[in-house]
Amino acid sequence: MYTLYYAPGTCALATHIALEEPGAPYKAERVDFSTGQQRSTDYLRINPKGRVPALVTDKGVLTETPALLAFVAQAFPAAKLAPLADPFAFARVQEINSYLCSTVHVAHAHKTRGARWTDDAAAIETMKRKVPETMGACAELIEAELIRGPWVMGDQYTICDPYLHTICRWLEGDSVDVARFPKIQAHMARMTERPAVQRALQMQG
Amino acid sequence: MYTLYYAPGTCALATHIALEEPGAPYKAERVDFSTGQQRSTDYLRINPKGRVPALVTDKGVLTETPALLAFVAQAFPAAKLAPLADPFAFARVQEINSYLCSTVHVAHAHKTRGARWTDDAAAIETMKRKVPETMGACAELIEAELIRGPWVMGDQYTICDPYLHTICRWLEGDSVDVARFPKIQAHMARMTERPAVQRALQMQG
Repeated sequence: MYTLYYAPGTCALATHIALEEPGAPYKAERVDFSTGQQRSTDYLRINPKGRVPALVTDKGVLTETPALLAFVAQAFPAAKLAPLADPFAFARVQEINSYLCSTVHVAHAHKTRGARWTDDAAAIETMKRKVPETMGACAELIEAELIRGPWVMGDQYTICDPYLHTICRWLEGDSVDVARFPKIQAHMARMTERPAVQRALQMQG
Repeated sequence: MYTLYYAPGTCALATHIALEEPGAPYKAERVDFSTGQQRSTDYLRINPKGRVPALVTDKGVLTETPALLAFVAQAFPAAKLAPLADPFAFARVQEINSYLCSTVHVAHAHKTRGARWTDDAAAIETMKRKVPETMGACAELIEAELIRGPWVMGDQYTICDPYLHTICRWLEGDSVDVARFPKIQAHMARMTERPAVQRALQMQG
């Protein structure tokens, strides 16, 4: 039995969907960001980084979305969530998830988490203003290079799909017009129909 | 035969060292950042993101350091660069590399790449000023949580080691006093002695 620590609207949704796909045994525990629970002593004992997601397993706690997604794929191989035995194809999956993590998520974080990188209130405002442009550029690269269709990696649904979907759900709030990106739009519609996505979203309330 | 596109001083060093460890067949091609070669039409055809590293393989081009490192580990299993068959241990390796990529490298990038996230020159200066603090906080977490010793994962040298080393080489330039961190210091000394590290650094000139 795993325990997934999450907060609604965060990238923890990706791991949540991935756990739902093979019917993994887990419970979901909400971390209340509105009261700063992620910085509480109790939570820092689980994840010293003070962030979500964190996945408690019987061997220890795992964090970082790309690692968690590959873990779920490897722990539940029958669900075929990643081409684990093909070094090139698996690297492609990880390349996409690494880009989503280190470029796209980081661009998005400059809207509400600017204080991570500057102490200056005016500077934070200038970061916020650039988010539609940076997230728009990411959406252009995703549209042009990353979605083979119908799923990210082509015919096979993989751990790239819940991660891309989680991040694409941020685009509208980041003032990116999704209507400009037909592949992203089709991917969002397809993901919204998946039972695993619906179950994870319903649990997150 | 692989081709690794790199620039000196960048995170491409991690993949370069990893390729040297098992004696992978590759050549290294320098991308000249001083003339903006990474934004040239020719290079964008190799890597549309305009960054290094990029690894040309006979199946296609791969990018993103965590993906490249796991690829080298999987393509050369005899070198035992990652615990590939153990989902939890492999997730731990990936968790560390994902943290280095999306938090530590991003903190460092605010020193010289602030224009990615703001158009305001004064804001960029405020970002630069915070880098010693953010990189210092990363070094504290690395020291307290990530290095088991003698290598990152303990007795077994893995793909975490060249990545951590590459990033630790930035600490002094980011005004972080490495003398405060004995485990990091010992890891740097140990890595500097490895023939693979010496060969990669020599090739990068």
